[in-house]
Amino acid sequence: MSAKASIDIAAARELHERLTVVDGLQYSNWDRSVFQQLHEGGVHAVHVTVAYWENARETLSRIGEWGRRYAAHGDLIRPVAGAADIRQAREEGRVGVFYGFQNCSPIEDEIDLVAVFRQLGVFLMQLTYNNQSLLGTGCYEEEDTGITRFGREVIREMNRVGMIIDMSHSAERTTLEAIELSARPVVVSHANPLFFRDVARNKSERVLRALAGSGGLLGFSAYPLHLGGGSECTLDAYCDMIARTADLMGVEHLGIGTDLCHRQPDQVLGWMRNGRWRRVLDGDEPESPRWPAQPAWFRDGSDFPNITAGLLARGFSETEIAGIMGENWLRVLEQGIAPQSQ
Amino acid sequence: MSAKASIDIAAARELHERLTVVDGLQYSNWDRSVFQQLHEGGVHAVHVTVAYWENARETLSRIGEWGRRYAAHGDLIRPVAGAADIRQAREEGRVGVFYGFQNCSPIEDEIDLVAVFRQLGVFLMQLTYNNQSLLGTGCYEEEDTGITRFGREVIREMNRVGMIIDMSHSAERTTLEAIELSARPVVVSHANPLFFRDVARNKSERVLRALAGSGGLLGFSAYPLHLGGGSECTLDAYCDMIARTADLMGVEHLGIGTDLCHRQPDQVLGWMRNGRWRRVLDGDEPESPRWPAQPAWFRDGSDFPNITAGLLARGFSETEIAGIMGENWLRVLEQGIAPQSQ
Repeated sequence: MSAKASIDIAAARELHERLTVVDGLQYSNWDRSVFQQLHEGGVHAVHVTVAYWENARETLSRIGEWGRRYAAHGDLIRPVAGAADIRQAREEGRVGVFYGFQNCSPIEDEIDLVAVFRQLGVFLMQLTYNNQSLLGTGCYEEEDTGITRFGREVIREMNRVGMIIDMSHSAERTTLEAIELSARPVVVSHANPLFFRDVARNKSERVLRALAGSGGLLGFSAYPLHLGGGSECTLDAYCDMIARTADLMGVEHLGIGTDLCHRQPDQVLGWMRNGRWRRVLDGDEPESPRWPAQPAWFRDGSDFPNITAGLLARGFSETEIAGIMGENWLRVLEQGIAPQSQ
Repeated sequence: MSAKASIDIAAARELHERLTVVDGLQYSNWDRSVFQQLHEGGVHAVHVTVAYWENARETLSRIGEWGRRYAAHGDLIRPVAGAADIRQAREEGRVGVFYGFQNCSPIEDEIDLVAVFRQLGVFLMQLTYNNQSLLGTGCYEEEDTGITRFGREVIREMNRVGMIIDMSHSAERTTLEAIELSARPVVVSHANPLFFRDVARNKSERVLRALAGSGGLLGFSAYPLHLGGGSECTLDAYCDMIARTADLMGVEHLGIGTDLCHRQPDQVLGWMRNGRWRRVLDGDEPESPRWPAQPAWFRDGSDFPNITAGLLARGFSETEIAGIMGENWLRVLEQGIAPQSQ
């Protein structure tokens, strides 16, 4: 490593320590070591997934488990009841935790459960997870029929109670309709642009522009299947993608949403992909899926300073980097999760 | 009515309007007219039952329905997130609503759900409802085996998260053991002393003294089956009972918990008594139970000033009346529902 690179790393470290850092999505195998890595990585808040296919009852257990984690690891983590708690977590040297659903399964067919789960700290909900849902169409369906009747009601209710609409795993038409219908910012918490890698989970320029138009953001994923070059993706290529997306969306509409699933056993990948809804896999899918290797510059939560370093090397200003690394998420949360006045 | 009585009523009205009034239990058939009656009756907070036999999932629907009521009747009612919100409700001219369970069925067998439901605004939970539960023995069982293994854990957890233990429908040994095990005040939100009417739902002097010793309170019921003389019970007799209980427990341990089930259809009484747990009734129970008539001085929520008038006529001081009508509930809530420091 050259002397110049060493100097850059020191500068990046110094900058990173001044930032408020938000990871816009993780589904790690939560234990003390994972919290310690986030703490070491200078992360002040993380959006954690509490449901993929879980129904309302099962979701209560997932949220209940977080209560147990706060009790056991209260020196490292804390619940976040509002955007201000993230600033507070930073002051306390703890990692703030807020909840999201990657599917609408927890609300079942009951619109009143949106408010109930919002009261339990669920700040974001995806309208679909890969498949057709009661609300809209997922990104792996062949036909995209847009937002359903129930979907329109739920969007209005999410707007009312202050639960942010997340379209990370939704199909294009459904995504564009949700943005059109929502009166408040819409996000894609964890994905990348299609131009970086052409997979169903990544987003078109049309979707990205519409997200920015809503006041929302894109959280850049560090999940190998969303990266150009996969596990071999370089930090330079990642930051070039961010720069190109900034030109497209405006840098104030960019955040990080790593999609990190640190130390999850392979069976969990099966649960995420197959839930309870199928026994027979698609022709090209492996019977026993395995987690891909993370890129060398983002192996776990302690590697967040590398992203700051990459953005600095790419020529982003300190203000722009502060926005991408957390301030833009904070703004969207401030705007997105306050209940509408009654 | 004599001139003297008229003057007393005017004085009672004037006093009532200066009080902060809390009803420590209702299960009325909630609609706008019921809220209006409470408003007319000068009530500032009401503990509403959200579960008798409901499991966790069903309880979410019951809480969800309250969200709908706040949206529809926000000029008359508001949710209460802490004791201070009751003072706030009074300022706003609205009736504050807080939740309780009359059974432990909503937590099923999962201790983590205590914290989850506390976060949803459940301030009180009965450990049993009439029958043996997973936590202890109800007041209609023949054998009272006290607090169970799970019961001890749940008492500790309720103490930790700030959910008040309510022993209204519990058997004597179970009640005394709960008071002994709890580090925080225990209440009987809605019952009367055994000396007033000798029924399984009313409480012995030993229980009443133990409740006071815990820092908790007894909420006096106005449900006819708990009253001496039933539906014919006079306000004088009711206030005599309160005076005798004050001698026993100390006036600071007395509140009101009317157990009013205003305008509930008779089928609801069947649900409360039979749940899903039996098909064959006990020999002396009617096949089609009917609600008893309320006493003339407490027909609905608009009649709260009558209780103030009765207490004033009985010779209680203004401070004592303020305590019984709401301040004692406020103190117990303040002491009972704050989470223990982590």
